[in-house]
Amino acid sequence: MNFHIMTLFPELIDGVAKTSILGRAIQKDLISVNAVDIRTYTDNKHGRVDDYTYGGGAGMLMQAQPIYDCHQAIVEAIRDKEGAVAPFNAVSDSYNEGRRIRTVYMTPQAPVFTQEKARELADEEDIIFLCGHYEGVDERVLEEIVTDYISIGDYVLTGGELPALVCVDAIARLVPGVLGNGESYETESFDDGLLEYPQYSRPEIWRGREVPPVLLSGHHANVEKWRHEQSLIRTKERRPDLYEAYMKAHEDDERAKKRRKNNT
Amino acid sequence: MNFHIMTLFPELIDGVAKTSILGRAIQKDLISVNAVDIRTYTDNKHGRVDDYTYGGGAGMLMQAQPIYDCHQAIVEAIRDKEGAVAPFNAVSDSYNEGRRIRTVYMTPQAPVFTQEKARELADEEDIIFLCGHYEGVDERVLEEIVTDYISIGDYVLTGGELPALVCVDAIARLVPGVLGNGESYETESFDDGLLEYPQYSRPEIWRGREVPPVLLSGHHANVEKWRHEQSLIRTKERRPDLYEAYMKAHEDDERAKKRRKNNT
Repeated sequence: MNFHIMTLFPELIDGVAKTSILGRAIQKDLISVNAVDIRTYTDNKHGRVDDYTYGGGAGMLMQAQPIYDCHQAIVEAIRDKEGAVAPFNAVSDSYNEGRRIRTVYMTPQAPVFTQEKARELADEEDIIFLCGHYEGVDERVLEEIVTDYISIGDYVLTGGELPALVCVDAIARLVPGVLGNGESYETESFDDGLLEYPQYSRPEIWRGREVPPVLLSGHHANVEKWRHEQSLIRTKERRPDLYEAYMKAHEDDERAKKRRKNNT
Repeated sequence: MNFHIMTLFPELIDGVAKTSILGRAIQKDLISVNAVDIRTYTDNKHGRVDDYTYGGGAGMLMQAQPIYDCHQAIVEAIRDKEGAVAPFNAVSDSYNEGRRIRTVYMTPQAPVFTQEKARELADEEDIIFLCGHYEGVDERVLEEIVTDYISIGDYVLTGGELPALVCVDAIARLVPGVLGNGESYETESFDDGLLEYPQYSRPEIWRGREVPPVLLSGHHANVEKWRHEQSLIRTKERRPDLYEAYMKAHEDDERAKKRRKNNT
Protein backbone atom coordinates (compact mmCIF):
# COMPACT_ATOMS: atom_id res chain seq x y z
CA MET A 1 0.00 0.00 0.00
CA ASN A 2 1.38 3.36 -1.08
CA PHE A 3 0.76 6.72 0.58
CA HIS A 4 1.65 9.81 -1.47
CA ILE A 5 1.67 13.01 0.54
CA MET A 6 1.57 16.41 -1.20
CA THR A 7 3.09 18.91 1.22
CA LEU A 8 5.13 22.08 1.68
CA PHE A 9 7.07 20.33 4.47
CA PRO A 10 8.32 16.99 3.13
CA GLU A 11 10.95 16.76 5.89
CA LEU A 12 8.16 16.61 8.50
CA ILE A 13 6.61 13.61 6.75
CA ASP A 14 9.99 11.91 6.23
CA GLY A 15 10.93 12.46 9.90
CA VAL A 16 7.87 10.57 11.11
CA ALA A 17 7.85 7.96 8.36
CA LYS A 18 11.30 6.65 9.21
CA THR A 19 10.52 6.01 12.89
CA SER A 20 8.29 3.84 15.03
CA ILE A 21 5.89 1.29 13.62
CA LEU A 22 5.43 3.13 10.31
CA GLY A 23 9.20 3.13 9.79
CA ARG A 24 9.39 -0.61 10.46
CA ALA A 25 6.50 -1.28 8.03
CA ILE A 26 8.32 0.71 5.33
CA GLN A 27 11.54 -1.24 5.90
CA LYS A 28 9.58 -4.49 5.60
CA ASP A 29 8.16 -3.16 2.30
CA LEU A 30 4.58 -3.50 3.53
CA ILE A 31 3.83 0.16 2.86
CA SER A 32 5.53 3.17 1.29
CA VAL A 33 5.23 6.80 2.36
CA ASN A 34 6.21 9.19 -0.39
CA ALA A 35 6.41 12.90 0.56
CA VAL A 36 6.13 15.11 -2.53
CA ASP A 37 7.13 18.78 -2.28
CA ILE A 38 4.40 20.94 -3.85
CA ARG A 39 6.84 23.85 -4.15
CA THR A 40 8.92 22.08 -6.79
CA TYR A 41 5.91 22.20 -9.13
CA THR A 42 5.20 25.92 -9.08
CA ASP A 43 5.44 27.91 -12.32
CA ASN A 44 6.26 31.03 -10.29
CA LYS A 45 9.87 31.99 -10.86
CA HIS A 46 10.27 33.03 -7.21
CA GLY A 47 9.04 29.66 -6.01
CA ARG A 48 5.83 31.08 -4.57
CA VAL A 49 2.86 28.79 -4.04
CA ASP A 50 0.43 31.20 -2.30
CA ASP A 51 -1.33 34.50 -2.99
CA TYR A 52 -4.04 36.78 -1.58
CA THR A 53 -7.65 35.66 -1.24
CA TYR A 54 -10.23 37.18 -3.61
CA GLY A 55 -12.82 39.12 -1.65
CA GLY A 56 -10.42 39.88 1.20
CA GLY A 57 -9.16 38.10 4.28
CA ALA A 58 -5.96 38.24 6.32
CA GLY A 59 -4.45 34.92 5.31
CA MET A 60 -2.70 33.70 2.19
CA LEU A 61 -4.21 30.96 0.06
CA MET A 62 -2.39 28.06 -1.62
CA GLN A 63 -2.83 28.45 -5.38
CA ALA A 64 -4.27 25.89 -7.76
CA GLN A 65 -1.48 25.43 -10.32
CA PRO A 66 1.36 23.97 -8.19
CA ILE A 67 -1.02 21.56 -6.45
CA TYR A 68 -2.61 20.46 -9.70
CA ASP A 69 0.70 19.80 -11.41
CA CYS A 70 2.05 17.99 -8.35
CA HIS A 71 -1.05 15.77 -8.26
CA GLN A 72 -0.78 15.05 -11.96
CA ALA A 73 2.86 13.99 -11.56
CA ILE A 74 1.93 11.56 -8.78
CA VAL A 75 -0.98 10.09 -10.74
CA GLU A 76 1.28 9.65 -13.77
CA ALA A 77 3.90 7.89 -11.67
CA ILE A 78 1.25 5.50 -10.32
CA ARG A 79 0.03 4.81 -13.85
CA ASP A 80 3.58 4.19 -15.09
CA LYS A 81 4.14 1.74 -12.28
CA GLU A 82 0.98 -0.06 -13.29
CA GLY A 83 2.28 -0.27 -16.86
CA ALA A 84 -0.43 1.82 -18.47
CA VAL A 85 0.55 2.34 -22.12
CA ALA A 86 -1.61 5.30 -23.14
CA PRO A 87 -0.18 8.63 -22.02
CA PHE A 88 -2.17 10.08 -19.16
CA ASN A 89 -3.76 13.31 -20.27
CA ALA A 90 -5.42 15.10 -17.35
CA VAL A 91 -6.18 14.14 -13.82
CA SER A 92 -9.90 14.52 -14.28
CA ASP A 93 -9.66 11.83 -16.97
CA SER A 94 -8.69 9.32 -14.35
CA TYR A 95 -12.11 9.71 -12.77
CA ASN A 96 -13.82 8.90 -16.05
CA GLU A 97 -11.58 6.62 -18.03
CA GLY A 98 -9.39 4.82 -15.57
CA ARG A 99 -9.24 3.79 -11.99
CA ARG A 100 -10.06 6.67 -9.69
CA ILE A 101 -7.11 7.30 -7.39
CA ARG A 102 -8.34 8.33 -3.97
CA THR A 103 -7.19 11.85 -3.19
CA VAL A 104 -7.83 13.07 0.34
CA TYR A 105 -7.77 16.73 1.33
CA MET A 106 -7.14 17.20 5.05
CA THR A 107 -9.32 20.10 6.22
CA PRO A 108 -11.47 21.06 9.20
CA GLN A 109 -14.28 21.72 6.65
CA ALA A 110 -15.13 18.04 6.39
CA PRO A 111 -16.71 15.01 8.00
CA VAL A 112 -14.64 13.72 10.92
CA PHE A 113 -12.34 10.70 10.43
CA THR A 114 -13.55 7.44 11.96
CA GLN A 115 -12.31 3.88 12.34
CA GLU A 116 -14.86 2.91 9.69
CA LYS A 117 -13.31 5.38 7.22
CA ALA A 118 -9.85 3.98 8.05
CA ARG A 119 -11.08 0.48 7.18
CA GLU A 120 -12.60 1.72 3.92
CA LEU A 121 -9.38 3.45 2.84
CA ALA A 122 -7.27 0.43 3.83
CA ASP A 123 -8.71 -1.34 0.75
CA GLU A 124 -6.96 1.08 -1.63
CA GLU A 125 -3.58 0.39 -3.18
CA ASP A 126 -2.62 4.06 -3.57
CA ILE A 127 -3.89 7.06 -1.64
CA ILE A 128 -2.84 10.67 -2.27
CA PHE A 129 -3.08 13.17 0.59
CA LEU A 130 -3.09 16.94 0.15
CA CYS A 131 -1.86 18.92 3.17
CA GLY A 132 -3.02 22.52 3.30
CA HIS A 133 -1.27 25.46 4.93
CA TYR A 134 -1.90 29.18 5.43
CA GLU A 135 -5.58 30.14 5.10
CA GLY A 136 -6.47 27.19 2.87
CA VAL A 137 -6.44 26.08 -0.76
CA ASP A 138 -8.05 27.52 -3.91
CA GLU A 139 -11.45 25.82 -4.17
CA ARG A 140 -11.10 25.09 -7.89
CA VAL A 141 -8.17 22.70 -7.57
CA LEU A 142 -10.02 20.85 -4.83
CA GLU A 143 -12.97 20.40 -7.19
CA GLU A 144 -10.59 19.02 -9.82
CA ILE A 145 -8.60 16.49 -7.83
CA VAL A 146 -10.16 15.67 -4.44
CA THR A 147 -12.26 12.55 -3.89
CA ASP A 148 -12.46 12.65 -0.05
CA TYR A 149 -12.53 15.52 2.43
CA ILE A 150 -11.39 14.44 5.90
CA SER A 151 -11.06 16.29 9.21
CA ILE A 152 -9.36 14.53 12.12
CA GLY A 153 -11.38 16.53 14.67
CA ASP A 154 -12.92 19.86 15.67
CA TYR A 155 -9.72 21.79 16.41
CA VAL A 156 -7.46 24.04 14.35
CA LEU A 157 -3.90 23.05 13.43
CA THR A 158 -1.06 24.86 11.64
CA GLY A 159 -1.21 22.54 8.62
CA GLY A 160 -2.44 19.28 7.17
CA GLU A 161 0.76 17.25 7.70
CA LEU A 162 -0.02 15.87 11.17
CA PRO A 163 -3.64 15.07 10.18
CA ALA A 164 -2.39 13.24 7.07
CA LEU A 165 0.09 11.26 9.20
CA VAL A 166 -2.70 10.40 11.66
CA CYS A 167 -4.75 8.97 8.77
CA VAL A 168 -1.73 7.12 7.35
CA ASP A 169 -1.04 5.61 10.78
CA ALA A 170 -4.67 4.52 11.33
CA ILE A 171 -4.86 3.00 7.84
CA ALA A 172 -1.38 1.43 7.77
CA ARG A 173 -1.90 -0.48 11.01
CA LEU A 174 -4.81 -2.30 9.34
CA VAL A 175 -2.49 -3.61 6.61
CA PRO A 176 -1.69 -7.27 7.40
CA GLY A 177 1.78 -7.70 8.93
CA VAL A 178 2.25 -4.07 9.99
CA LEU A 179 1.43 -4.78 13.63
CA GLY A 180 3.47 -7.36 15.53
CA ASN A 181 1.88 -9.88 17.85
CA GLY A 182 2.51 -7.84 20.98
CA GLU A 183 0.86 -4.84 19.38
CA SER A 184 -2.20 -6.45 17.83
CA TYR A 185 -5.18 -5.48 19.90
CA GLU A 186 -7.39 -8.41 20.83
CA THR A 187 -10.26 -6.23 21.96
CA GLU A 188 -10.09 -2.89 20.24
CA SER A 189 -11.55 0.42 21.20
CA PHE A 190 -14.76 1.22 19.32
CA ASP A 191 -15.14 -2.29 17.96
CA ASP A 192 -18.10 -2.90 20.24
CA GLY A 193 -18.91 0.78 20.79
CA LEU A 194 -17.50 0.89 24.34
CA LEU A 195 -14.20 2.21 25.68
CA GLU A 196 -11.62 -0.25 26.96
CA TYR A 197 -11.52 -1.39 30.59
CA PRO A 198 -8.54 -0.56 32.88
CA GLN A 199 -5.51 -2.83 32.52
CA TYR A 200 -2.73 -3.93 34.86
CA SER A 201 0.70 -5.49 34.52
CA ARG A 202 3.41 -6.61 36.93
CA PRO A 203 4.03 -6.13 39.82
CA GLU A 204 0.87 -7.16 41.71
CA ILE A 205 1.36 -4.34 44.20
CA TRP A 206 2.88 -1.04 43.08
CA ARG A 207 3.14 1.98 45.39
CA GLY A 208 0.53 0.38 47.62
CA ARG A 209 -1.91 -0.07 44.75
CA GLU A 210 -3.11 -3.64 44.16
CA VAL A 211 -4.22 -5.27 40.94
CA PRO A 212 -8.00 -6.01 41.23
CA PRO A 213 -8.10 -9.59 42.64
CA VAL A 214 -10.49 -10.88 39.97
CA LEU A 215 -7.74 -10.41 37.35
CA LEU A 216 -5.49 -12.80 39.32
CA SER A 217 -8.26 -15.37 39.87
CA GLY A 218 -7.78 -17.25 36.62
CA HIS A 219 -11.59 -17.38 36.33
CA HIS A 220 -12.08 -16.39 32.70
CA ALA A 221 -15.83 -15.71 32.87
CA ASN A 222 -15.47 -13.48 35.94
CA VAL A 223 -12.63 -11.56 34.29
CA GLU A 224 -14.82 -10.95 31.24
CA LYS A 225 -17.74 -9.84 33.41
CA TRP A 226 -15.55 -7.42 35.39
CA ARG A 227 -14.03 -5.98 32.22
CA HIS A 228 -17.42 -5.44 30.60
CA GLU A 229 -18.71 -3.66 33.72
CA GLN A 230 -15.61 -1.46 33.82
CA SER A 231 -16.03 -0.63 30.13
CA LEU A 232 -19.63 0.43 30.79
CA ILE A 233 -18.65 2.59 33.79
CA ARG A 234 -15.79 4.25 31.94
CA THR A 235 -17.77 4.90 28.77
CA LYS A 236 -20.63 6.42 30.76
CA GLU A 237 -18.21 8.68 32.62
CA ARG A 238 -15.89 9.77 29.81
CA ARG A 239 -17.96 9.47 26.66
CA PRO A 240 -21.67 9.77 27.50
CA ASP A 241 -22.39 10.06 23.74
CA LEU A 242 -20.96 6.60 23.05
CA TYR A 243 -22.64 5.19 26.16
CA GLU A 244 -26.08 6.39 25.08
CA ALA A 245 -25.61 5.00 21.57
CA TYR A 246 -24.51 1.65 23.04
CA MET A 247 -27.44 1.45 25.48
CA LYS A 248 -29.90 2.35 22.75
CA ALA A 249 -28.53 -0.34 20.40
CA HIS A 250 -28.60 -2.80 23.30
CA GLU A 251 -32.25 -1.98 24.14
CA ASP A 252 -33.19 -2.40 20.49
CA ASP A 253 -31.53 -5.82 20.52
CA GLU A 254 -33.42 -6.83 23.66
CA ARG A 255 -36.72 -5.64 22.19
CA ALA A 256 -36.08 -7.55 18.96
CA LYS A 257 -35.27 -10.68 20.99
CA LYS A 258 -38.53 -10.32 22.95
CA ARG A 259 -40.50 -9.81 19.74
CA ARG A 260 -38.98 -12.95 18.27
CA LYS A 261 -39.80 -14.84 21.45
CA ASN A 262 -43.43 -13.62 21.46
CA ASN A 263 -43.84 -14.59 17.83
CA THR A 264 -42.82 -18.20 18.40
CA MET B 1 5.47 27.53 27.02
CA ASN B 2 7.12 24.14 27.50
CA PHE B 3 5.86 20.80 26.20
CA HIS B 4 7.41 17.68 27.78
CA ILE B 5 6.62 14.49 25.90
CA MET B 6 7.15 11.10 27.55
CA THR B 7 7.62 8.58 24.74
CA LEU B 8 9.30 5.38 23.56
CA PHE B 9 10.06 7.12 20.23
CA PRO B 10 11.76 10.44 21.02
CA GLU B 11 13.17 10.65 17.48
CA LEU B 12 9.62 10.84 16.10
CA ILE B 13 8.88 13.86 18.29
CA ASP B 14 12.22 15.50 17.51
CA GLY B 15 11.72 14.96 13.76
CA VAL B 16 8.45 16.89 13.78
CA ALA B 17 9.50 19.50 16.33
CA LYS B 18 12.39 20.76 14.25
CA THR B 19 10.29 21.41 11.13
CA SER B 20 7.46 23.62 9.97
CA ILE B 21 5.79 26.21 12.17
CA LEU B 22 6.60 24.36 15.42
CA GLY B 23 10.29 24.33 14.49
CA ARG B 24 10.25 28.05 13.81
CA ALA B 25 8.49 28.76 17.13
CA ILE B 26 11.16 26.73 18.96
CA GLN B 27 13.96 28.63 17.21
CA LYS B 28 12.30 31.89 18.22
CA ASP B 29 12.21 30.58 21.81
CA LEU B 30 8.43 30.98 22.00
CA ILE B 31 7.93 27.32 22.92
CA SER B 32 10.07 24.29 23.75
CA VAL B 33 9.34 20.67 22.88
CA ASN B 34 11.25 18.25 25.05
CA ALA B 35 11.03 14.55 24.11
CA VAL B 36 11.90 12.32 27.08
CA ASP B 37 12.68 8.65 26.47
CA ILE B 38 10.70 6.51 28.94
CA ARG B 39 13.03 3.57 28.32
CA THR B 40 15.98 5.30 29.98
CA TYR B 41 14.06 5.20 33.29
CA THR B 42 13.34 1.47 33.50
CA ASP B 43 14.76 -0.53 36.42
CA ASN B 44 14.69 -3.63 34.24
CA LYS B 45 18.24 -4.66 33.41
CA HIS B 46 17.25 -5.68 29.87
CA GLY B 47 15.69 -2.27 29.24
CA ARG B 48 12.15 -3.66 29.09
CA VAL B 49 9.23 -1.34 29.70
CA ASP B 50 6.31 -3.69 29.00
CA ASP B 51 4.87 -6.97 30.30
CA TYR B 52 1.80 -9.19 30.02
CA THR B 53 -1.67 -8.05 31.03
CA TYR B 54 -3.18 -9.54 34.22
CA GLY B 55 -6.34 -11.42 33.37
CA GLY B 56 -5.21 -12.23 29.85
CA GLY B 57 -5.19 -10.47 26.49
CA ALA B 58 -2.96 -10.61 23.43
CA GLY B 59 -1.15 -7.31 23.80
CA MET B 60 1.66 -6.12 26.02
CA LEU B 61 1.12 -3.38 28.57
CA MET B 62 3.48 -0.51 29.44
CA GLN B 63 4.48 -0.91 33.08
CA ALA B 64 4.06 1.66 35.84
CA GLN B 65 7.64 2.07 37.15
CA PRO B 66 9.48 3.50 34.12
CA ILE B 67 6.66 5.94 33.39
CA TYR B 68 6.41 7.05 37.00
CA ASP B 69 10.15 7.65 37.35
CA CYS B 70 10.27 9.47 34.00
CA HIS B 71 7.40 11.73 35.09
CA GLN B 72 9.05 12.43 38.42
CA ALA B 73 12.29 13.46 36.68
CA ILE B 74 10.40 15.89 34.44
CA VAL B 75 8.48 17.39 37.36
CA GLU B 76 11.73 17.79 39.32
CA ALA B 77 13.39 19.54 36.38
CA ILE B 78 10.44 21.95 36.12
CA ARG B 79 10.65 22.65 39.87
CA ASP B 80 14.42 23.21 39.69
CA LYS B 81 13.92 25.66 36.85
CA GLU B 82 11.38 27.50 38.99
CA GLY B 83 13.93 27.68 41.82
CA ALA B 84 12.01 25.61 44.34
CA VAL B 85 14.29 25.09 47.36
CA ALA B 86 12.67 22.14 49.12
CA PRO B 87 13.55 18.79 47.52
CA PHE B 88 10.58 17.36 45.66
CA ASN B 89 9.46 14.15 47.29
CA ALA B 90 6.83 12.41 45.18
CA VAL B 91 4.79 13.39 42.19
CA SER B 92 1.53 13.07 44.04
CA ASP B 93 2.80 15.73 46.43
CA SER B 94 2.75 18.23 43.62
CA TYR B 95 -1.02 17.92 43.45
CA ASN B 96 -1.37 18.74 47.11
CA GLU B 97 1.50 20.98 48.06
CA GLY B 98 2.60 22.78 44.97
CA ARG B 99 1.37 23.82 41.58
CA ARG B 100 -0.28 20.95 39.80
CA ILE B 101 1.56 20.28 36.56
CA ARG B 102 -0.88 19.31 33.84
CA THR B 103 -0.16 15.76 32.70
CA VAL B 104 -2.08 14.57 29.67
CA TYR B 105 -2.46 10.90 28.72
CA MET B 106 -3.27 10.46 25.04
CA THR B 107 -5.78 7.59 24.78
CA PRO B 108 -8.89 6.67 22.82
CA GLN B 109 -10.53 6.05 26.26
CA ALA B 110 -11.18 9.73 26.79
CA PRO B 111 -13.20 12.80 25.90
CA VAL B 112 -12.38 14.09 22.42
CA PHE B 113 -10.02 17.05 22.00
CA THR B 114 -11.68 20.33 21.03
CA GLN B 115 -10.62 23.88 20.21
CA GLU B 116 -11.97 24.88 23.63
CA LYS B 117 -9.63 22.38 25.33
CA ALA B 118 -6.72 23.73 23.28
CA ARG B 119 -7.49 27.25 24.52
CA GLU B 120 -7.68 26.01 28.12
CA LEU B 121 -4.32 24.23 27.91
CA ALA B 122 -2.68 27.24 26.20
CA ASP B 123 -2.84 29.00 29.60
CA GLU B 124 -0.35 26.54 31.13
CA GLU B 125 3.36 27.16 31.32
CA ASP B 126 4.35 23.48 31.32
CA ILE B 127 2.39 20.52 30.00
CA ILE B 128 3.54 16.89 30.20
CA PHE B 129 2.22 14.41 27.64
CA LEU B 130 2.33 10.63 28.06
CA CYS B 131 2.30 8.66 24.80
CA GLY B 132 1.13 5.06 25.13
CA HIS B 133 2.10 2.11 22.96
CA TYR B 134 1.27 -1.60 22.72
CA GLU B 135 -2.03 -2.49 24.39
CA GLY B 136 -1.98 0.45 26.81
CA VAL B 137 -0.57 1.53 30.16
CA ASP B 138 -0.90 0.09 33.69
CA GLU B 139 -3.92 1.86 35.19
CA ARG B 140 -2.19 2.55 38.50
CA VAL B 141 0.44 4.92 37.11
CA LEU B 142 -2.29 6.80 35.27
CA GLU B 143 -4.13 7.26 38.57
CA GLU B 144 -0.90 8.62 40.11
CA ILE B 145 0.22 11.12 37.51
CA VAL B 146 -2.49 11.98 34.96
CA THR B 147 -4.60 15.14 35.24
CA ASP B 148 -6.23 15.06 31.76
CA TYR B 149 -7.26 12.20 29.49
CA ILE B 150 -7.50 13.28 25.85
CA SER B 151 -8.46 11.45 22.66
CA ILE B 152 -7.96 13.19 19.32
CA GLY B 153 -10.81 11.22 17.72
CA ASP B 154 -12.65 7.93 17.38
CA TYR B 155 -10.01 5.95 15.52
CA VAL B 156 -7.17 3.67 16.58
CA LEU B 157 -3.51 4.59 16.09
CA THR B 158 -0.24 2.73 16.69
CA GLY B 159 0.79 5.05 19.53
CA GLY B 160 0.25 8.33 21.33
CA GLU B 161 3.04 10.31 19.61
CA LEU B 162 1.03 11.71 16.69
CA PRO B 163 -1.94 12.55 18.98
CA ALA B 164 0.42 14.37 21.38
CA LEU B 165 1.93 16.32 18.46
CA VAL B 166 -1.56 17.22 17.25
CA CYS B 167 -2.35 18.66 20.68
CA VAL B 168 1.01 20.47 20.86
CA ASP B 169 0.37 21.97 17.42
CA ALA B 170 -3.17 23.12 18.27
CA ILE B 171 -2.02 24.63 21.57
CA ALA B 172 1.25 26.15 20.32
CA ARG B 173 -0.42 28.08 17.51
CA LEU B 174 -2.46 29.94 20.16
CA VAL B 175 0.75 31.20 21.82
CA PRO B 176 1.24 34.86 20.79
CA GLY B 177 3.89 35.23 18.06
CA VAL B 178 3.86 31.60 16.90
CA LEU B 179 1.74 32.33 13.83
CA GLY B 180 2.96 34.89 11.31
CA ASN B 181 0.64 37.44 9.71
CA GLY B 182 0.03 35.39 6.57
CA GLU B 183 -0.95 32.41 8.70
CA SER B 184 -3.17 34.09 11.25
CA TYR B 185 -6.73 33.19 10.48
CA GLU B 186 -9.12 36.13 10.44
CA THR B 187 -12.23 33.97 10.46
CA GLU B 188 -11.45 30.65 12.00
CA SER B 189 -13.19 27.35 11.70
CA PHE B 190 -15.51 26.61 14.64
CA ASP B 191 -15.31 30.13 16.01
CA ASP B 192 -18.92 30.79 14.98
CA GLY B 193 -19.90 27.12 14.81
CA LEU B 194 -19.94 26.99 10.99
CA LEU B 195 -17.42 25.61 8.51
CA GLU B 196 -15.46 28.04 6.33
CA TYR B 197 -16.71 29.17 2.91
CA PRO B 198 -14.81 28.29 -0.31
CA GLN B 199 -11.85 30.52 -1.13
CA TYR B 200 -10.14 31.57 -4.34
CA SER B 201 -6.80 33.07 -5.31
CA ARG B 202 -5.18 34.14 -8.60
CA PRO B 203 -5.71 33.67 -11.49
CA GLU B 204 -9.34 34.74 -12.06
CA ILE B 205 -9.86 31.93 -14.55
CA TRP B 206 -8.05 28.62 -14.07
CA ARG B 207 -8.72 25.58 -16.28
CA GLY B 208 -11.96 27.25 -17.37
CA ARG B 209 -13.14 27.71 -13.78
CA GLU B 210 -13.99 31.28 -12.80
CA VAL B 211 -13.78 32.93 -9.42
CA PRO B 212 -17.37 33.72 -8.29
CA PRO B 213 -17.98 37.31 -9.58
CA VAL B 214 -19.17 38.61 -6.21
CA LEU B 215 -15.65 38.12 -4.80
CA LEU B 216 -14.26 40.46 -7.50
CA SER B 217 -17.00 43.08 -6.99
CA GLY B 218 -15.32 44.95 -4.17
CA HIS B 219 -18.73 45.15 -2.47
CA HIS B 220 -17.84 44.16 1.06
CA ALA B 221 -21.39 43.54 2.35
CA ASN B 222 -22.25 41.31 -0.62
CA VAL B 223 -19.01 39.35 -0.15
CA GLU B 224 -19.89 38.76 3.50
CA LYS B 225 -23.43 37.70 2.61
CA TRP B 226 -22.18 35.25 -0.04
CA ARG B 227 -19.59 33.79 2.33
CA HIS B 228 -22.13 33.31 5.11
CA GLU B 229 -24.52 31.54 2.71
CA GLN B 230 -21.72 29.29 1.47
CA SER B 231 -20.75 28.47 5.07
CA LEU B 232 -24.33 27.46 5.81
CA ILE B 233 -24.59 25.30 2.67
CA ARG B 234 -21.26 23.60 3.31
CA THR B 235 -21.91 22.98 7.01
CA LYS B 236 -25.34 21.50 6.25
CA GLU B 237 -23.82 19.20 3.64
CA ARG B 238 -20.62 18.08 5.38
CA ARG B 239 -21.36 18.42 9.09
CA PRO B 240 -25.12 18.17 9.69
CA ASP B 241 -24.38 17.90 13.44
CA LEU B 242 -22.74 21.35 13.52
CA TYR B 243 -25.46 22.78 11.25
CA GLU B 244 -28.25 21.61 13.56
CA ALA B 245 -26.48 23.02 16.64
CA TYR B 246 -25.97 26.34 14.83
CA MET B 247 -29.60 26.58 13.68
CA LYS B 248 -30.86 25.71 17.14
CA ALA B 249 -28.69 28.39 18.78
CA HIS B 250 -29.82 30.86 16.10
CA GLU B 251 -33.52 30.07 16.70
CA ASP B 252 -33.02 30.51 20.44
CA ASP B 253 -31.46 33.92 19.75
CA GLU B 254 -34.38 34.95 17.55
CA ARG B 255 -36.90 33.79 20.13
CA ALA B 256 -35.07 35.71 22.89
CA LYS B 257 -35.07 38.82 20.69
CA LYS B 258 -38.82 38.51 20.10
CA ARG B 259 -39.47 38.05 23.80
CA ARG B 260 -37.47 41.16 24.61
CA LYS B 261 -39.42 43.07 21.92
CA ASN B 262 -42.80 41.89 23.29
CA ASN B 263 -41.82 42.91 26.80
CA THR B 264 -41.06 46.50 25.83
